[in-house]
Formats: sequence, structure tokens, C-alpha cells
Amino acid sequence: MPQAHQADFTWIDGRFVRDAVVTVGDDGRIASVGVETGDEQTVERLRGRVLLPGFVNAHSHAFQRLLRGRVEARPADRAGGDFWGWREAMYRAVDRLDPDDFERATRLAFVEMALAGWTHVVEFHYVHHQAGGVPYDDPHELSRRVLAAAEFAGIGITLLRVAYQRGGPGVEAGGGQLRFVDTLDEYALALDELDAFRSSGPRPVGVGVAAHSVRALDGDFLRGLAVLAEGDPGVVHAHVSEQPREIEQCLAEHGRRPVELLDEVGLLGPRFTAVHATHLGPGEPALLGRAGSAVCVCPTTERNLGDGLPDLTALLDARVPLALGSDSQARIDAFAEARALEDGERLRSGRRVVLPRSGTTAAVVLGAATTGGARAAGLDAGRIEVGARADLITVALRDPAFAGTVGDPEAVAGALVLGGTPAMVEDVWVGGRRIVEGGRHPGLTRAARAFDEVVPRVYG
Amino acid sequence: MPQAHQADFTWIDGRFVRDAVVTVGDDGRIASVGVETGDEQTVERLRGRVLLPGFVNAHSHAFQRLLRGRVEARPADRAGGDFWGWREAMYRAVDRLDPDDFERATRLAFVEMALAGWTHVVEFHYVHHQAGGVPYDDPHELSRRVLAAAEFAGIGITLLRVAYQRGGPGVEAGGGQLRFVDTLDEYALALDELDAFRSSGPRPVGVGVAAHSVRALDGDFLRGLAVLAEGDPGVVHAHVSEQPREIEQCLAEHGRRPVELLDEVGLLGPRFTAVHATHLGPGEPALLGRAGSAVCVCPTTERNLGDGLPDLTALLDARVPLALGSDSQARIDAFAEARALEDGERLRSGRRVVLPRSGTTAAVVLGAATTGGARAAGLDAGRIEVGARADLITVALRDPAFAGTVGDPEAVAGALVLGGTPAMVEDVWVGGRRIVEGGRHPGLTRAARAFDEVVPRVYG
Repeated sequence: MPQAHQADFTWIDGRFVRDAVVTVGDDGRIASVGVETGDEQTVERLRGRVLLPGFVNAHSHAFQRLLRGRVEARPADRAGGDFWGWREAMYRAVDRLDPDDFERATRLAFVEMALAGWTHVVEFHYVHHQAGGVPYDDPHELSRRVLAAAEFAGIGITLLRVAYQRGGPGVEAGGGQLRFVDTLDEYALALDELDAFRSSGPRPVGVGVAAHSVRALDGDFLRGLAVLAEGDPGVVHAHVSEQPREIEQCLAEHGRRPVELLDEVGLLGPRFTAVHATHLGPGEPALLGRAGSAVCVCPTTERNLGDGLPDLTALLDARVPLALGSDSQARIDAFAEARALEDGERLRSGRRVVLPRSGTTAAVVLGAATTGGARAAGLDAGRIEVGARADLITVALRDPAFAGTVGDPEAVAGALVLGGTPAMVEDVWVGGRRIVEGGRHPGLTRAARAFDEVVPRVYG
Repeated sequence: MPQAHQADFTWIDGRFVRDAVVTVGDDGRIASVGVETGDEQTVERLRGRVLLPGFVNAHSHAFQRLLRGRVEARPADRAGGDFWGWREAMYRAVDRLDPDDFERATRLAFVEMALAGWTHVVEFHYVHHQAGGVPYDDPHELSRRVLAAAEFAGIGITLLRVAYQRGGPGVEAGGGQLRFVDTLDEYALALDELDAFRSSGPRPVGVGVAAHSVRALDGDFLRGLAVLAEGDPGVVHAHVSEQPREIEQCLAEHGRRPVELLDEVGLLGPRFTAVHATHLGPGEPALLGRAGSAVCVCPTTERNLGDGLPDLTALLDARVPLALGSDSQARIDAFAEARALEDGERLRSGRRVVLPRSGTTAAVVLGAATTGGARAAGLDAGRIEVGARADLITVALRDPAFAGTVGDPEAVAGALVLGGTPAMVEDVWVGGRRIVEGGRHPGLTRAARAFDEVVPRVYG
């Protein structure tokens, strides 16, 4: 049935508008945005709340939720003194997960995302096979588990099948990596079969292509992937320049930096998103910009892993759109990612209010969390306007973080970005269906209990 | 009356211990810590909660809460494109505050601190006079207002009277700065009179000395202040090397860097805390370490103002104790400050788990938030042990951030640091008196309403 909502403030075109009425049609899309509504509809007054487009999590490895708080100690062999040591801990966790475990870990992460206001996730899914590398009887076993977890949580998903070939330049895949490996032919077949999983219903399921990284794929594989991506309607993502070692190796193998290589092999384009882009060379932002490609920053993960801070000013100067992702799930907090986008650039530049060319920091960082994320996900959502998917959230203003905003829309947005937390998210709708109400998700208790059972199998 | 509390986990000596019973005597101090209690006492079982020492906010300018979310937009003349522009916005706010406004702004900030688990605040108090610089009839008018605000909130306070002489080397104080200025004689008299405000009761009131910065004080004033500090029992703080310009000016004026100058004039010592220490030179951490001085980092403010990241590894190598402060109140979130301590050093170093020499990140950053803060405040609190002040807080574990911790003390601590928010703080006791119960502070509504009335006077 059609719905109509009226919050104190509604986020439209990068600012809060007072008392707008938003109606949602039976098709799960926004039917009208304005100050009036038809007589036949009862308006639900969302008092003390603001209405926003749902956040889009443009980069997630959901099962890594299992690592949270377990890799934060010394000596380094327990946790990893750097990114590469952390990766070993992640491989050890991967090695122990059966499909049920994998689904349970993914399910909890997705429910937490829903509670944090993320209505859609781009899952960068790279675990395909059994431990040791033997395929499951159903080669899409784990993809099905990921999709089932999104269905359980009620959020939309763009499933990216990740191509992974090798441990690094001249290094075969081994250990935990064996669960990730496809040949190009196997990958092409899998991508073809995944087409059947697509759905454009109110809770959309998308499929797309992902190159794990220039570390994990050689030039021929990358070129083959570019051909496949051209024939596929979905988005294309890759980890790009997260750690300096990747760039050194890429220069040694190809004589070019990662974005230069991705450009040469034909992977850049308007459907392409570079994830991280932490250590780009001087010409690389312009390459991305000219190709119409986007960058997904994952600030809380990039802090946690000691990756560093990307040069966002260079990216925005090159007109590269930005998106945000929770990546390793060290935290699941869309507000933390959003505020960290600007915070990081302030730390890097030694200046304040650096991302907006005019207007507010809130407009830029909430834009990355919504419209930027939707773009990276290949999703017609992320904005409150007629025809867009009705992926919507409300945030309650009762927290003391909002004291002093006194009905000033810009101050409300500023306080939201500075002080927002997942616990303030009150309602979440995906395609017009409410999956979180009063800050509660009906599946949380079950998901958390099932997750607790997985933990001893990984760490016991 | 004596109390006894038993949480699921209690933070003792840098780790969580299961089911400890903590008793509090009539004197507001911890009477026992163990697994048993006397028959005469009823143990309050704090189920689903962890018990921690109260956090100590080692650097606060409470009234700056008025700037939150109001200085986050371009063009720069609205908000300040750097630290110095932000400072102009702060001066404009200062200029409009009468004592009632000042108290109301301070009160809200202190109530928010209590709700966030801060049981004690070191207020770096620099607004002393009327607009234009004329003293109030009672020269301690605004100090009294700060102390009244702490009493309203129920938290302990160390009030630092800040010495401020000039706009900078060769620049007289002007505009908003006129409210800050004392001569050395005036400062000496004020410090003497403030002695009467000290209280060692269950809610302690301390007084101490603060040099605003080497920018705001010349060499003679700094030397005079060192003599006064020697005769005063309180702690001594100064802003140190927050922005590169301060160091350039200090080198030009004195031929030495700020910590070198503070050492030379005699201000360093075991009661001294350098606030920020963002841009120290190579020898300066060792100078602080040899003097037994501490550093207070204010990570969320230092991000917001684009200050940069201090070299914490060098400070810890020099055995300099660390504390944490909410400073500008851009955020009031003790957990955010704690996790940012390690996050910042990871971003700076490109490594993980960098602060602990052994053990967990949680032990180091919660140590800075508790014992480190207490040291900087001159307070015998910050740890759960017999004889310490019973400044205690509980954090509820019901949030999904704690899923998967399955009763593992190290995982609980990791999840607390990664995912903790003020909204998870359930109980707060100061000197054994509960000021927050069930996450509610009885003064919040009143404080927020009064604060809302101040805002239009500053921004109207």
C-alpha cells in the first residue's frame, strides 16, 4: 500500500528541508516529494526525526566481522604488526569456515549494517571454494549464502564475484588463498551463471565483476576480465593501491602503477570503482576522472590497517565521485565512515573544511554515503526524489549531540555528521518495506546467537 | 552508606577480570576489590555490563560546545579554512557570552561528558573578564560559573586558570582576546585566591596553573609563571606545538622550540602536561620524558582543526605518559578519543597495533583515558584499586558491537574500544555517588533547554 512520511527535516539535494512529505508507491519507489499529499493517504509524522536516503555500503567483506577485536594485540604474530600480518590472521579465519559459518558471519554483519542505516551493500565476495580449493558441488554455494544473508537482513545487495588468480607476481596461490582461486574460464562461466541471481524487485540483487587487485591477477587475466566486464551489465570494482608494496610490485612487473595498468587493460570506465586508492601517483586521479570512474574510501578500515590517507583533494579536483565502505567491519558505522572522509583530508592537508568547494562538509560526506555509494553499486537510489528506490532511513534527534541545533537545518546536518552513531537510527526502509523500526531489527537476536556459535570454531 | 557492585567484567590493571566485587566506602573511595564481600553488604549485580574507572577528560574548553556543527561550511569566512580561521569564529562566539550564557554552555558540555563516562574534567579556563577586558566585580565570576557547572553535572573538576598576555610575539592582545588577559601580578593574585575553591571531598575540585602557549606569553611571563607554579600544589598545563606557525614564531623569538623553551624557563616537571604536542622536534619527546612530564592528545579536535598527528611512538619511547581530552567539544565521546589515539599512530606509521609494547591496544588507550588522565588532572583516581576515588562507570554490552565476544575478556575490550559510544554508558559514579543511572542524567533536559537559549544570542 502507498505510504507517506513527514519528518522534521528531509535530506534533499544535499541539505535538510523542513516538513517535506515523501510518498512511496506500491512499486517501492518514491512517488512524490513535496509539502502536500493526496487526500487518500495518511501521513506518518516522524516527529523528532530526520529522513535521509539509505546509506549504501560500497565495499564490504562481511565475514571479516569475525576478526573484530581479535587482531588488536601484540606480539605481532597474534595480530599482525602491519597489513600483511593482519591478512595472515584473516586467512586463518577463512580456512575454518564452512558454508553455515560463512552465512552466519555474513548475516550478522548485514543485520548490523541495516541497524546502522545501510540499506544496500556491495559485497566484494572472494571466498568461492572449500578449504584447499576444491569447488563445492554447487559452485555458487557461498554466493547463495551471501545472498541469503542479505535477504535475512532485508537489505539490497550488489554481489561482486571476485577474480583471484595468484598469491602475487610470480607467486602461486597457497593456504587460505586456495579458496579464492578461479581460472579465467571458470570465472567467465560463474559470471554467466550468476546472471540468474539478478533481481530488480523492491529489494534489488545486482551482480558485478571484481578484480581482486593487480597483485592477485596478471596482465592477461586483467585483460580477459575487461572483456568479460564489457559484456556484463554490472559494475566493476577492484582494490587499488591500498599498500605501497602493491605499487612497487606493479611497477616491477608492468612498468606502470596500478591505475595506469587498469587503464591500459581496459578496466577503467564509468562503471568502474577503485577501492581505497590510498597511494596514487600524480597522474592517476586524472586517469580515473577522465574515465568517469569512482573511488570508494573505507576510512575506518584504512585507519585500522595502517593503510594511510588518500589524497581526496586530488580526486575531487579530477572530478572523481567518492563512495564509502565498511570493508573489514572493524566498525559497522556509516556515520563514522562519513565524518572520517573529511577528517582524514584535514589531517593530511593541515586545513579545515577541505572537501566542499562551497557549502557544507555534511553535503559532501553524506553525498558519498548515499548518492556516491548508489553510483558505485549501480543502483538507482541514494537520493530522495521521484522515481528513486524508496531506500530511506530516519535518525532520531533526541541525543544530546543535537542540543543547540535549535531547528537550524545546517546545524542539524553538522551535528549529525559530527555526532551520529548507529544507535540513533530509528527506521530503515528498503524499497518501501520497513526492516528496522524503533531502532530494532527483528533478526538481530537470532543472528547474534548464531554468530556467537561460529566464533569458537574460528578461535577455539 | 557502603556499596558493593559486581559487573560481568571489571577493568583492573589494564584488563577485564570476571565477576569481581568492588566495594565503596562512606568516604567515596574504593574499599575492596575481590571475589567476596562482607556479609553486611548487598551486592548490586550489574548484569550485562562492564565496570571501568571513570574516564578523565584532561583538556576541555567547555564553552566551545557552542561551535559544534557551526564551523563546518565554506566559504572560509563563515568557518575558517584553517585553525586560525576557526579561532576567529571562536573569538566571535566568546565576545557575545555573558556569565549566564557562559555557565549554560559549560553546563551542557559537562552533562554530556558525564553521560559519555567522563567523571572528571580538566577545564583549561581562559575567559576571565568582560568583553573589552574590564574585570567583573568579582574577578572570579567566570571561574565560579565553571565550578557551578561541574557541580550541576556532578563531575569532579580541575580548574586551570590560564595565563594569557598577548596576541603573539610583538602583537598586543585585541578583540576577543581582551577577555583573556592578565598581568603576571594579576595572575599571581588570582591563583592565590583560587586556593579557597579547592575541595578534596567525594567530588573533588582542584586548581592549577596553565600557560596558554608560548605564543600568548613572553619569556619573562613564562619564567614568572614557573615560579608561581613551584609554589602551587596543583598541576601545570600548556598548549604546546599544535600548529607549525607557533614553532616558527618561537624559533624566531627565542631561538628554541616550544618544549625547549618551557624546559629552559623551568615549567617542565612531573606535574606538567603538554597539550597536543603535535609537531615536536627530534629532541623534545626526550626533554618531556626526562622531566617526567605528560602529553595530553585531543584526537577528535586535532582532526577537526587539521592540526595533524603527533609522533606517539617517540613519546612512548621517551616514557612520556599520555592522557586524552575532548578540547573543542566538536565531539564529546571518550571512546572516540581513545580509539583515535591508536588509529592516528597507525595512519602516521603505516603499521598496526603500534602503541602497545606487549598486550592489547585497549590496555594502552583505555589507560590514557583513565590513569593517564588522572595523572594529568592531579587526581588519585583512574584505576580500580583499594583507596582510589570511586569514580566508576558501567558500559552495557547489549549493543550488536559486542556480538561474538562470547565472554572473552580481551575480545570485550577490543569491541569496546572499536565500537564504544556514549550511548552505551549505563551508570556513572563520582566519589561513590551515582550521577548517571540507566544512561540518564537528571539534569540533561534542563541543561539542553538552557543551552538552546544561548545559541541565538551567539548566532542570531
